[in-house]
Amino acid sequence: MSSQLPSLMAPPAELLSPIHIPQHLLMGPGPTNVSERVAKACGNQIIGHMHKECFKIMDEIKAGLRYAFQTENSWTLAVSGPSHLGMEAVLVNLLEPGDKVLIGVNGLWGNRAMDLANRLGAKPIALRQELGKSFSLSKIERGLSKHRPKVLFLVHSESSTGVMQNLIGVGDLCRKYKVLLVVDAVASLVGVPFFMDDWKVDAVYTGTQKAIGAPPGICPVSFGRRAVKVIETRKTPIKSYMLDMNILTIQWGCHVNLPRIYHHTPAVNLLFALREALAEVVEEGLENLWKRHAQASARLRAGLLAMGMKLFVEDEKDRLLTVTTIVIPDGIEWRKVTQYVMDTYNMEISGGLGPSVGKVFRIGTLGVNATPEKVDLALQAFKEGLEFARLKARL
Amino acid sequence: MSSQLPSLMAPPAELLSPIHIPQHLLMGPGPTNVSERVAKACGNQIIGHMHKECFKIMDEIKAGLRYAFQTENSWTLAVSGPSHLGMEAVLVNLLEPGDKVLIGVNGLWGNRAMDLANRLGAKPIALRQELGKSFSLSKIERGLSKHRPKVLFLVHSESSTGVMQNLIGVGDLCRKYKVLLVVDAVASLVGVPFFMDDWKVDAVYTGTQKAIGAPPGICPVSFGRRAVKVIETRKTPIKSYMLDMNILTIQWGCHVNLPRIYHHTPAVNLLFALREALAEVVEEGLENLWKRHAQASARLRAGLLAMGMKLFVEDEKDRLLTVTTIVIPDGIEWRKVTQYVMDTYNMEISGGLGPSVGKVFRIGTLGVNATPEKVDLALQAFKEGLEFARLKARL
Repeated sequence: MSSQLPSLMAPPAELLSPIHIPQHLLMGPGPTNVSERVAKACGNQIIGHMHKECFKIMDEIKAGLRYAFQTENSWTLAVSGPSHLGMEAVLVNLLEPGDKVLIGVNGLWGNRAMDLANRLGAKPIALRQELGKSFSLSKIERGLSKHRPKVLFLVHSESSTGVMQNLIGVGDLCRKYKVLLVVDAVASLVGVPFFMDDWKVDAVYTGTQKAIGAPPGICPVSFGRRAVKVIETRKTPIKSYMLDMNILTIQWGCHVNLPRIYHHTPAVNLLFALREALAEVVEEGLENLWKRHAQASARLRAGLLAMGMKLFVEDEKDRLLTVTTIVIPDGIEWRKVTQYVMDTYNMEISGGLGPSVGKVFRIGTLGVNATPEKVDLALQAFKEGLEFARLKARL
Repeated sequence: MSSQLPSLMAPPAELLSPIHIPQHLLMGPGPTNVSERVAKACGNQIIGHMHKECFKIMDEIKAGLRYAFQTENSWTLAVSGPSHLGMEAVLVNLLEPGDKVLIGVNGLWGNRAMDLANRLGAKPIALRQELGKSFSLSKIERGLSKHRPKVLFLVHSESSTGVMQNLIGVGDLCRKYKVLLVVDAVASLVGVPFFMDDWKVDAVYTGTQKAIGAPPGICPVSFGRRAVKVIETRKTPIKSYMLDMNILTIQWGCHVNLPRIYHHTPAVNLLFALREALAEVVEEGLENLWKRHAQASARLRAGLLAMGMKLFVEDEKDRLLTVTTIVIPDGIEWRKVTQYVMDTYNMEISGGLGPSVGKVFRIGTLGVNATPEKVDLALQAFKEGLEFARLKARL
């Protein structure tokens, strides 16, 4: 064999050492830690993606996601990639070149949607709001009325700034102006109330690695009837094969009368893990999950205020209950704090992201980590980290 | 909380039962089974994608992939999605609207690339060949000379038909005609020789779930200097944020002078698993892996011929050593055979895919399953399956 072949490169020595995976307590904005049950499922031996047992797991995931999104949409499934691919899945299916899309920009994720819409040849229009604030219904209506877009894109959970967007009433405005309502619910789903059907959300994507408590790398999406109709009657091809919902939904068994056809090979281990995380969601129940996340968040905020911290989001009703943002006190180098917490507690808490870098700390209370014990530990670690950084600043 | 909220849907009962993941021996064209070490890594607790330990794992993956591809390309990394997303990553970065791309079509994967290039607004031109045959250098040169494309796309391992494409000499032709050479090596890498740099391949993607022996859902890619230059000097934006190599390579630390910046949250569990699979590749060594896969394939083919089977790929030099295609004998319902093998042996062997459906059986000898014991078991199961189907046909 080797006579006509070139000589081999030397094997890389770094792969001859054992892998090093530390145990970290993830109290940042996600990914969060997963339960033992979820981790175990992820470490299972592979099965084929076209085996009937895999289809059953996918059907269970669909049922769990319909419950999590509170929707009866048949096009409810998981895209094979991270939450960002979920954003792409929603926009690449709904937008055609030249389509106007009004995008609420009050943090990183709105900016990312602007960037993506531009790449897709659509016409993104920014509806801007200060960092740390949400959009009022009247501001949204003015935007819809002025720009008459095809799609309105809002971030339910702006994890870069810790803002939650009220969605009650937005769907009605969108129907009034014949606009599709697209929502990023990455950092909020199952951590705070979300009612896709009742709130008239036309398309949504979320993160598995946040309150759902599964690993990252697979992204739940759901499309309502109005969105499906837009996708089915496009004039131009969808600029992706992987994300083309017309065919991906066939593999996922979303069509009553169509047998499943191979589309691509999904990450079967992540299907196992997501199925188990959703089973835990169903077992605990959404109302209990919302309550647990609200309590963890309240405990965290009370502790922060008692320490003299200032929350970045001023209006209480704008505060995201899964990711809390804290104003960096004057004279504190934020990296010193997060580094101390990691070095001393093997715990992640985060600085800002994108436009909030240097402005905030972010502490997440997500999934298995939304408990009083973890919150108290995070408060203790954060307090020590601040003291450490203050001391360093004085030296 | 619930006063203003609608009432909840009932929790789905199917998620209250335990998950069922059977143990299957995967002797189809992939995914294949993974080693215990790889499965265990996949089941680890999550760490953050921006933690230094995760960057180290990503660096180890890059080193392992450079070895597997036999390349020194700095833009060697893994895309967060299945192999199909790897195809999209390569084409969406290299193609602009109107660009001519010549695509070797001799099975499903060439068809998929045609479809994708069309979606991206490029001008795909099919260079066609009969199913079961590869492209000769002279045919390739005639195509390049006639069409003068920007990109030539060839499938190294046409797993739908079991054909391997010779690549020696193709790179030189592409340089002669100033064409970029893009290769799909999904089902071949580390199972058969592949020398990216020596063969002058400009961009490549592969599958983790084939001979590499990792789970599916993450896709190794590599871009050489000529491809990078084309990407860096595009006139139109890349129609995807997730796959934009200019920025994704920064998160992966592919630029000597650029610190890593957050791009997206990758599937950290799949990074763990891929790292361990690549460590096993390095420990065994490419030459040993090629030899083991060649021996497993030879044993399988000898057994099939002894049973009176006919191989679908007539010319021995066109035969892919990782996936063997077998002509379905007259009067045999292929589904009866594969179903028998699954029911009796919990083993997957496959029918055809796309254009080869109803024409072939496909048996894979990939990764941990490329051993004499597994081959003998597959031969036994297949033989019984054929007898079962013959009996059923007579009844």
